[in-house]
Amino acid sequence: MEFSSSLIEKAVNEISSLPGIGRKTALRLALNILQREESEVASLSSAILRLRQEIRYCKKCHNISDQDVCSICSNPSRDNSILCVVQDIRDVMAVESTAQFKGLYHVLGGIISPMDGVGPSDLQIDSLVERLTRGDHKELILALPPTMEGDTTNFYVFRKIKDLDIELTCLSRGVPVGDELEYTDELTLGRSLLQRIPYEQSLKQ
Amino acid sequence: MEFSSSLIEKAVNEISSLPGIGRKTALRLALNILQREESEVASLSSAILRLRQEIRYCKKCHNISDQDVCSICSNPSRDNSILCVVQDIRDVMAVESTAQFKGLYHVLGGIISPMDGVGPSDLQIDSLVERLTRGDHKELILALPPTMEGDTTNFYVFRKIKDLDIELTCLSRGVPVGDELEYTDELTLGRSLLQRIPYEQSLKQ
Repeated sequence: MEFSSSLIEKAVNEISSLPGIGRKTALRLALNILQREESEVASLSSAILRLRQEIRYCKKCHNISDQDVCSICSNPSRDNSILCVVQDIRDVMAVESTAQFKGLYHVLGGIISPMDGVGPSDLQIDSLVERLTRGDHKELILALPPTMEGDTTNFYVFRKIKDLDIELTCLSRGVPVGDELEYTDELTLGRSLLQRIPYEQSLKQ
Repeated sequence: MEFSSSLIEKAVNEISSLPGIGRKTALRLALNILQREESEVASLSSAILRLRQEIRYCKKCHNISDQDVCSICSNPSRDNSILCVVQDIRDVMAVESTAQFKGLYHVLGGIISPMDGVGPSDLQIDSLVERLTRGDHKELILALPPTMEGDTTNFYVFRKIKDLDIELTCLSRGVPVGDELEYTDELTLGRSLLQRIPYEQSLKQ
Protein backbone atom coordinates (compact mmCIF):
# COMPACT_ATOMS: atom_id res chain seq x y z
CA MET A 1 0.00 0.00 0.00
CA GLU A 2 1.47 3.34 -1.07
CA PHE A 3 0.00 6.48 0.38
CA SER A 4 -0.06 9.97 -1.07
CA SER A 5 0.04 11.51 2.40
CA SER A 6 2.18 10.71 5.43
CA LEU A 7 -0.72 11.69 7.71
CA ILE A 8 -2.97 8.96 6.31
CA GLU A 9 -0.08 6.48 6.33
CA LYS A 10 0.58 7.19 10.00
CA ALA A 11 -3.13 6.91 10.84
CA VAL A 12 -3.47 3.59 8.96
CA ASN A 13 -0.37 2.22 10.72
CA GLU A 14 -1.73 3.20 14.13
CA ILE A 15 -5.29 1.98 13.55
CA SER A 16 -4.14 -1.34 12.10
CA SER A 17 -2.12 -1.98 15.27
CA LEU A 18 -5.44 -2.65 17.02
CA PRO A 19 -6.33 -6.37 17.29
CA GLY A 20 -8.38 -7.79 14.41
CA ILE A 21 -8.01 -4.67 12.24
CA GLY A 22 -6.02 -5.11 9.03
CA ARG A 23 -4.63 -2.40 6.78
CA LYS A 24 -7.61 -2.35 4.40
CA THR A 25 -10.07 -1.93 7.26
CA ALA A 26 -7.80 0.72 8.81
CA LEU A 27 -7.83 2.67 5.52
CA ARG A 28 -11.63 2.44 5.39
CA LEU A 29 -11.85 3.77 8.96
CA ALA A 30 -9.33 6.55 8.17
CA LEU A 31 -11.40 7.67 5.16
CA ASN A 32 -14.50 7.66 7.35
CA ILE A 33 -12.66 9.82 9.91
CA LEU A 34 -11.77 12.29 7.14
CA GLN A 35 -15.43 12.69 6.24
CA ARG A 36 -16.58 13.45 9.77
CA GLU A 37 -16.90 16.76 11.60
CA GLU A 38 -13.71 17.84 13.33
CA SER A 39 -15.50 18.00 16.71
CA GLU A 40 -16.63 14.37 16.34
CA VAL A 41 -13.08 13.24 15.58
CA ALA A 42 -11.72 15.25 18.52
CA SER A 43 -14.23 13.50 20.76
CA LEU A 44 -13.20 10.04 19.49
CA SER A 45 -9.51 10.88 19.86
CA SER A 46 -9.87 12.21 23.41
CA ALA A 47 -12.10 9.31 24.52
CA ILE A 48 -9.31 6.90 23.53
CA LEU A 49 -6.58 8.89 25.29
CA ARG A 50 -8.62 9.62 28.44
CA LEU A 51 -9.60 5.94 28.69
CA ARG A 52 -5.93 5.02 29.02
CA GLN A 53 -4.82 8.00 31.11
CA GLU A 54 -7.65 8.33 33.60
CA ILE A 55 -8.97 4.80 34.09
CA ARG A 56 -8.89 3.51 37.65
CA TYR A 57 -9.25 0.04 39.06
CA CYS A 58 -11.36 -0.82 42.09
CA LYS A 59 -9.05 -1.27 45.12
CA LYS A 60 -11.05 -4.28 46.26
CA CYS A 61 -12.01 -6.33 43.19
CA HIS A 62 -9.74 -4.76 40.46
CA ASN A 63 -12.72 -4.15 38.20
CA ILE A 64 -12.54 -1.02 36.04
CA SER A 65 -14.09 1.87 37.93
CA ASP A 66 -14.46 5.65 38.09
CA GLN A 67 -13.98 5.67 41.88
CA ASP A 68 -11.49 4.04 44.26
CA VAL A 69 -14.09 1.39 45.02
CA CYS A 70 -16.39 0.23 42.20
CA SER A 71 -20.19 0.48 42.25
CA ILE A 72 -20.57 -3.28 42.86
CA CYS A 73 -18.18 -3.44 45.84
CA SER A 74 -19.73 -0.31 47.39
CA ASN A 75 -23.32 -1.55 46.94
CA PRO A 76 -24.59 -2.52 50.46
CA SER A 77 -27.28 -4.84 49.04
CA ARG A 78 -24.70 -7.21 47.49
CA ASP A 79 -23.84 -10.41 49.37
CA ASN A 80 -20.37 -10.00 50.86
CA SER A 81 -20.06 -13.71 51.65
CA ILE A 82 -19.68 -14.92 48.04
CA LEU A 83 -16.81 -13.97 45.72
CA CYS A 84 -16.81 -14.76 42.00
CA VAL A 85 -13.38 -14.96 40.30
CA VAL A 86 -13.43 -13.83 36.65
CA GLN A 87 -10.86 -13.21 33.95
CA ASP A 88 -11.69 -9.62 32.99
CA ILE A 89 -14.31 -6.88 32.92
CA ARG A 90 -16.18 -8.52 30.01
CA ASP A 91 -16.88 -11.52 32.20
CA VAL A 92 -18.12 -9.29 35.03
CA MET A 93 -20.55 -7.81 32.47
CA ALA A 94 -21.54 -11.28 31.25
CA VAL A 95 -22.27 -12.57 34.79
CA GLU A 96 -24.08 -9.33 35.73
CA SER A 97 -26.31 -9.64 32.66
CA THR A 98 -27.64 -13.00 33.95
CA ALA A 99 -29.02 -11.23 37.08
CA GLN A 100 -28.38 -14.57 38.90
CA PHE A 101 -25.45 -13.42 41.04
CA LYS A 102 -25.69 -11.03 43.95
CA GLY A 103 -22.23 -11.47 45.45
CA LEU A 104 -18.97 -9.63 44.77
CA TYR A 105 -16.29 -10.16 42.11
CA HIS A 106 -12.56 -10.55 41.93
CA VAL A 107 -11.07 -9.66 38.52
CA LEU A 108 -7.81 -11.52 37.87
CA GLY A 109 -6.89 -9.45 34.81
CA GLY A 110 -6.17 -12.56 32.72
CA ILE A 111 -5.51 -16.27 33.13
CA ILE A 112 -2.28 -18.24 33.45
CA SER A 113 -0.97 -18.82 29.92
CA PRO A 114 2.69 -19.74 29.49
CA MET A 115 2.27 -19.47 25.69
CA ASP A 116 1.41 -15.76 26.04
CA GLY A 117 3.97 -15.22 28.81
CA VAL A 118 1.32 -14.71 31.49
CA GLY A 119 2.29 -16.20 34.86
CA PRO A 120 0.56 -16.12 38.26
CA SER A 121 2.52 -13.01 39.29
CA ASP A 122 0.97 -11.04 36.40
CA LEU A 123 -2.50 -11.69 37.79
CA GLN A 124 -4.39 -10.50 40.88
CA ILE A 125 -4.01 -13.87 42.63
CA ASP A 126 -2.02 -12.70 45.67
CA SER A 127 -4.59 -10.01 46.39
CA LEU A 128 -7.34 -12.66 46.06
CA VAL A 129 -5.64 -14.85 48.68
CA GLU A 130 -5.19 -11.80 50.91
CA ARG A 131 -8.90 -10.94 50.56
CA LEU A 132 -9.91 -14.51 51.44
CA THR A 133 -7.51 -14.72 54.39
CA ARG A 134 -9.39 -11.86 56.05
CA GLY A 135 -12.25 -14.36 56.53
CA ASP A 136 -15.22 -12.24 55.33
CA HIS A 137 -16.07 -14.60 52.49
CA LYS A 138 -17.58 -18.08 52.77
CA GLU A 139 -17.71 -19.20 49.14
CA LEU A 140 -15.46 -18.66 46.15
CA ILE A 141 -16.94 -19.32 42.67
CA LEU A 142 -14.35 -20.01 39.97
CA ALA A 143 -15.88 -18.52 36.79
CA LEU A 144 -12.88 -18.74 34.48
CA PRO A 145 -13.15 -19.85 30.83
CA PRO A 146 -13.59 -23.63 30.26
CA THR A 147 -10.20 -23.93 28.54
CA MET A 148 -6.85 -25.46 29.39
CA GLU A 149 -5.60 -22.05 30.63
CA GLY A 150 -8.76 -21.54 32.67
CA ASP A 151 -8.40 -25.00 34.23
CA THR A 152 -4.72 -24.33 35.04
CA THR A 153 -5.62 -21.08 36.75
CA ASN A 154 -8.48 -22.76 38.64
CA PHE A 155 -6.04 -25.40 39.92
CA TYR A 156 -3.46 -22.77 40.90
CA VAL A 157 -6.07 -20.85 42.91
CA PHE A 158 -7.29 -24.13 44.49
CA ARG A 159 -3.75 -24.97 45.67
CA LYS A 160 -3.26 -21.47 47.09
CA ILE A 161 -6.44 -21.44 49.18
CA LYS A 162 -7.00 -25.11 50.02
CA ASP A 163 -5.99 -24.59 53.67
CA LEU A 164 -8.48 -21.75 54.17
CA ASP A 165 -11.98 -22.49 55.42
CA ILE A 166 -13.73 -21.50 52.19
CA GLU A 167 -16.18 -23.43 50.03
CA LEU A 168 -14.78 -23.56 46.51
CA THR A 169 -17.22 -24.03 43.61
CA CYS A 170 -16.97 -23.71 39.84
CA LEU A 171 -19.41 -23.14 36.99
CA SER A 172 -21.31 -26.23 35.88
CA ARG A 173 -20.46 -27.42 32.39
CA GLY A 174 -22.99 -29.02 30.12
CA VAL A 175 -25.33 -28.69 27.20
CA PRO A 176 -26.09 -24.98 26.46
CA VAL A 177 -29.74 -24.02 27.05
CA GLY A 178 -31.68 -24.06 23.76
CA ASP A 179 -28.98 -26.02 21.91
CA GLU A 180 -29.50 -29.19 19.86
CA LEU A 181 -27.80 -32.31 21.28
CA GLU A 182 -26.47 -33.33 17.87
CA TYR A 183 -24.56 -30.05 17.54
CA THR A 184 -23.05 -30.19 21.03
CA ASP A 185 -19.38 -31.19 20.97
CA GLU A 186 -18.60 -34.61 22.43
CA LEU A 187 -16.50 -33.28 25.33
CA THR A 188 -19.32 -31.06 26.55
CA LEU A 189 -21.96 -33.75 26.06
CA GLY A 190 -19.72 -36.29 27.85
CA ARG A 191 -19.25 -33.93 30.80
CA SER A 192 -22.97 -33.25 31.09
CA LEU A 193 -23.64 -37.03 31.19
CA LEU A 194 -21.03 -37.61 33.89
CA GLN A 195 -22.24 -34.64 35.91
CA ARG A 196 -25.94 -35.43 35.51
CA ILE A 197 -28.22 -34.04 38.21
CA PRO A 198 -31.49 -35.37 39.75
CA TYR A 199 -34.43 -34.29 37.57
CA GLU A 200 -36.23 -32.73 40.50
CA GLN A 201 -33.24 -30.47 41.13
CA SER A 202 -33.44 -29.14 37.55
CA LEU A 203 -37.07 -28.12 38.12
CA LYS A 204 -36.09 -25.74 40.90
CA GLN A 205 -33.89 -23.58 38.69
CA MET B 1 -24.34 -3.45 28.05
CA GLU B 2 -23.78 -1.91 31.47
CA PHE B 3 -20.40 -0.45 32.26
CA SER B 4 -18.74 0.01 35.62
CA SER B 5 -16.90 3.11 34.36
CA SER B 6 -18.13 6.10 32.37
CA LEU B 7 -14.70 6.36 30.70
CA ILE B 8 -15.02 2.93 29.14
CA GLU B 9 -18.65 3.57 28.24
CA LYS B 10 -17.69 6.78 26.44
CA ALA B 11 -14.79 5.05 24.64
CA VAL B 12 -17.03 2.14 23.54
CA ASN B 13 -19.68 4.58 22.28
CA GLU B 14 -17.12 6.55 20.29
CA ILE B 15 -15.28 3.53 18.85
CA SER B 16 -18.52 1.79 17.86
CA SER B 17 -19.54 4.89 15.87
CA LEU B 18 -16.92 3.84 13.30
CA PRO B 19 -18.35 1.92 10.32
CA GLY B 20 -18.44 -1.87 10.68
CA ILE B 21 -17.51 -1.83 14.40
CA GLY B 22 -20.19 -3.04 16.80
CA ARG B 23 -20.28 -2.59 20.56
CA LYS B 24 -18.68 -5.97 21.35
CA THR B 25 -15.74 -5.26 19.03
CA ALA B 26 -15.48 -1.73 20.46
CA LEU B 27 -15.23 -3.17 23.97
CA ARG B 28 -12.53 -5.60 22.83
CA LEU B 29 -10.57 -2.70 21.31
CA ALA B 30 -11.06 -0.56 24.44
CA LEU B 31 -9.69 -3.37 26.65
CA ASN B 32 -6.73 -3.68 24.31
CA ILE B 33 -6.12 0.07 24.60
CA LEU B 34 -6.14 -0.25 28.40
CA GLN B 35 -3.39 -2.86 28.25
CA ARG B 36 -1.06 -0.78 26.06
CA GLU B 37 1.65 1.70 27.03
CA GLU B 38 0.35 5.23 27.50
CA SER B 39 2.76 6.56 24.84
CA GLU B 40 1.38 4.10 22.27
CA VAL B 41 -2.19 5.17 23.01
CA ALA B 42 -1.20 8.86 22.80
CA SER B 43 0.31 8.17 19.40
CA LEU B 44 -2.88 6.43 18.17
CA SER B 45 -5.07 9.21 19.53
CA SER B 46 -3.01 11.99 17.98
CA ALA B 47 -2.71 10.21 14.60
CA ILE B 48 -6.52 10.15 14.40
CA LEU B 49 -6.92 13.80 15.36
CA ARG B 50 -4.07 15.08 13.16
CA LEU B 51 -5.41 13.11 10.20
CA ARG B 52 -8.64 15.09 10.38
CA GLN B 53 -7.12 18.45 11.34
CA GLU B 54 -4.08 18.65 9.10
CA ILE B 55 -5.02 16.68 5.99
CA ARG B 56 -4.86 18.63 2.74
CA TYR B 57 -6.24 17.88 -0.66
CA CYS B 58 -4.33 18.38 -3.91
CA LYS B 59 -5.50 21.63 -5.56
CA LYS B 60 -5.45 19.93 -8.96
CA CYS B 61 -6.78 16.39 -8.55
CA HIS B 62 -8.32 16.53 -5.01
CA ASN B 63 -6.35 13.49 -3.94
CA ILE B 64 -5.24 13.45 -0.30
CA SER B 65 -1.84 15.07 -0.04
CA ASP B 66 0.72 16.57 2.32
CA GLN B 67 1.43 19.47 -0.05
CA ASP B 68 -0.75 21.86 -2.05
CA VAL B 69 -0.12 19.74 -5.12
CA CYS B 70 0.15 15.96 -4.68
CA SER B 71 3.17 13.86 -5.63
CA ILE B 72 1.42 12.45 -8.71
CA CYS B 73 0.34 15.83 -10.14
CA SER B 74 3.78 17.33 -9.50
CA ASN B 75 5.65 14.39 -11.06
CA PRO B 76 7.03 15.64 -14.42
CA SER B 77 7.29 12.11 -15.83
CA ARG B 78 3.51 11.54 -15.68
CA ASP B 79 1.50 11.96 -18.90
CA ASN B 80 -0.47 15.20 -18.60
CA SER B 81 -2.68 14.35 -21.60
CA ILE B 82 -4.68 11.54 -19.88
CA LEU B 83 -6.93 12.04 -16.87
CA CYS B 84 -8.45 9.15 -14.92
CA VAL B 85 -11.63 9.89 -12.93
CA VAL B 86 -11.95 7.85 -9.72
CA GLN B 87 -14.29 7.75 -6.75
CA ASP B 88 -11.82 8.13 -3.90
CA ILE B 89 -8.23 7.74 -2.72
CA ARG B 90 -8.59 3.95 -2.43
CA ASP B 91 -9.22 3.76 -6.17
CA VAL B 92 -6.16 5.93 -6.88
CA MET B 93 -4.17 3.38 -4.84
CA ALA B 94 -5.82 0.47 -6.71
CA VAL B 95 -5.02 1.93 -10.15
CA GLU B 96 -1.49 2.90 -9.08
CA SER B 97 -0.84 -0.63 -7.88
CA THR B 98 -1.45 -1.97 -11.44
CA ALA B 99 1.51 0.13 -12.71
CA GLN B 100 -0.43 0.32 -16.01
CA PHE B 101 -1.39 4.00 -15.83
CA LYS B 102 1.04 6.88 -16.21
CA GLY B 103 -1.44 9.77 -16.54
CA LEU B 104 -3.01 11.98 -13.87
CA TYR B 105 -6.08 11.50 -11.68
CA HIS B 106 -9.19 13.40 -10.75
CA VAL B 107 -10.75 12.29 -7.45
CA LEU B 108 -14.51 12.96 -7.34
CA GLY B 109 -14.85 12.29 -3.61
CA GLY B 110 -17.79 9.93 -4.15
CA ILE B 111 -20.38 9.02 -6.78
CA ILE B 112 -23.90 10.28 -7.41
CA SER B 113 -26.22 8.36 -5.08
CA PRO B 114 -29.69 9.84 -4.39
CA MET B 115 -30.28 7.09 -1.77
CA ASP B 116 -27.34 8.41 0.28
CA GLY B 117 -28.19 12.05 -0.48
CA VAL B 118 -25.10 12.55 -2.67
CA GLY B 119 -25.76 14.80 -5.68
CA PRO B 120 -23.44 16.16 -8.39
CA SER B 121 -22.82 19.35 -6.40
CA ASP B 122 -21.31 17.29 -3.55
CA LEU B 123 -18.66 15.93 -5.91
CA GLN B 124 -15.66 17.47 -7.70
CA ILE B 125 -17.44 17.45 -11.07
CA ASP B 126 -17.42 21.22 -11.74
CA SER B 127 -13.68 21.34 -11.10
CA LEU B 128 -13.25 18.38 -13.47
CA VAL B 129 -15.11 20.23 -16.25
CA GLU B 130 -13.02 23.35 -15.54
CA ARG B 131 -9.81 21.30 -15.77
CA LEU B 132 -10.90 19.78 -19.09
CA THR B 133 -12.01 23.14 -20.53
CA ARG B 134 -8.43 24.40 -20.21
CA GLY B 135 -7.61 21.98 -23.04
CA ASP B 136 -4.45 20.33 -21.65
CA HIS B 137 -5.98 16.87 -21.61
CA LYS B 138 -6.82 14.67 -24.61
CA GLU B 139 -8.40 11.63 -22.99
CA LEU B 140 -10.61 11.12 -19.96
CA ILE B 141 -10.84 7.59 -18.52
CA LEU B 142 -13.96 6.95 -16.43
CA ALA B 143 -12.80 4.49 -13.73
CA LEU B 144 -15.85 4.57 -11.47
CA PRO B 145 -17.34 1.43 -9.87
CA PRO B 146 -19.40 -0.85 -12.20
CA THR B 147 -22.63 -0.16 -10.26
CA MET B 148 -25.85 1.73 -10.93
CA GLU B 149 -24.44 4.76 -9.09
CA GLY B 150 -21.16 4.53 -11.01
CA ASP B 151 -23.04 4.35 -14.31
CA THR B 152 -25.21 7.35 -13.35
CA THR B 153 -22.12 9.38 -12.51
CA ASN B 154 -20.43 8.29 -15.75
CA PHE B 155 -23.46 9.46 -17.72
CA TYR B 156 -23.60 12.78 -15.85
CA VAL B 157 -19.92 13.46 -16.62
CA PHE B 158 -20.47 12.40 -20.26
CA ARG B 159 -23.33 14.94 -20.62
CA LYS B 160 -21.26 17.70 -19.04
CA ILE B 161 -18.24 17.29 -21.33
CA LYS B 162 -19.71 15.97 -24.58
CA ASP B 163 -19.16 19.30 -26.37
CA LEU B 164 -15.48 19.39 -25.46
CA ASP B 165 -12.90 17.89 -27.81
CA ILE B 166 -11.90 15.07 -25.46
CA GLU B 167 -11.76 11.34 -26.01
CA LEU B 168 -13.93 9.69 -23.35
CA THR B 169 -13.15 6.08 -22.43
CA CYS B 170 -14.21 3.76 -19.66
CA LEU B 171 -12.82 0.60 -18.05
CA SER B 172 -13.54 -2.59 -20.00
CA ARG B 173 -15.89 -4.97 -18.24
CA GLY B 174 -15.57 -8.69 -18.54
CA VAL B 175 -14.45 -11.94 -17.03
CA PRO B 176 -11.89 -11.32 -14.23
CA VAL B 177 -8.41 -12.66 -14.99
CA GLY B 178 -7.91 -16.09 -13.40
CA ASP B 179 -11.63 -16.60 -12.72
CA GLU B 180 -13.71 -19.65 -13.67
CA LEU B 181 -16.42 -19.02 -16.29
CA GLU B 182 -19.00 -21.00 -14.31
CA TYR B 183 -18.60 -18.71 -11.30
CA THR B 184 -18.82 -15.47 -13.28
CA ASP B 185 -22.22 -13.81 -12.90
CA GLU B 186 -24.40 -13.80 -16.01
CA LEU B 187 -24.38 -10.00 -16.42
CA THR B 188 -20.59 -9.87 -16.52
CA LEU B 189 -20.31 -12.91 -18.78
CA GLY B 190 -22.98 -11.45 -21.11
CA ARG B 191 -21.11 -8.14 -21.31
CA SER B 192 -17.83 -9.83 -22.10
CA LEU B 193 -19.51 -11.77 -24.94
CA LEU B 194 -21.08 -8.62 -26.42
CA GLN B 195 -17.82 -6.68 -26.07
CA ARG B 196 -15.59 -9.50 -27.37
CA ILE B 197 -12.29 -8.40 -28.90
CA PRO B 198 -10.17 -9.81 -31.76
CA TYR B 199 -7.94 -12.60 -30.40
CA GLU B 200 -4.81 -10.99 -31.79
CA GLN B 201 -5.57 -7.82 -29.82
CA SER B 202 -5.66 -9.82 -26.59
CA LEU B 203 -2.15 -11.12 -27.28
CA LYS B 204 -0.69 -7.63 -27.25
CA GLN B 205 -1.74 -6.94 -23.68
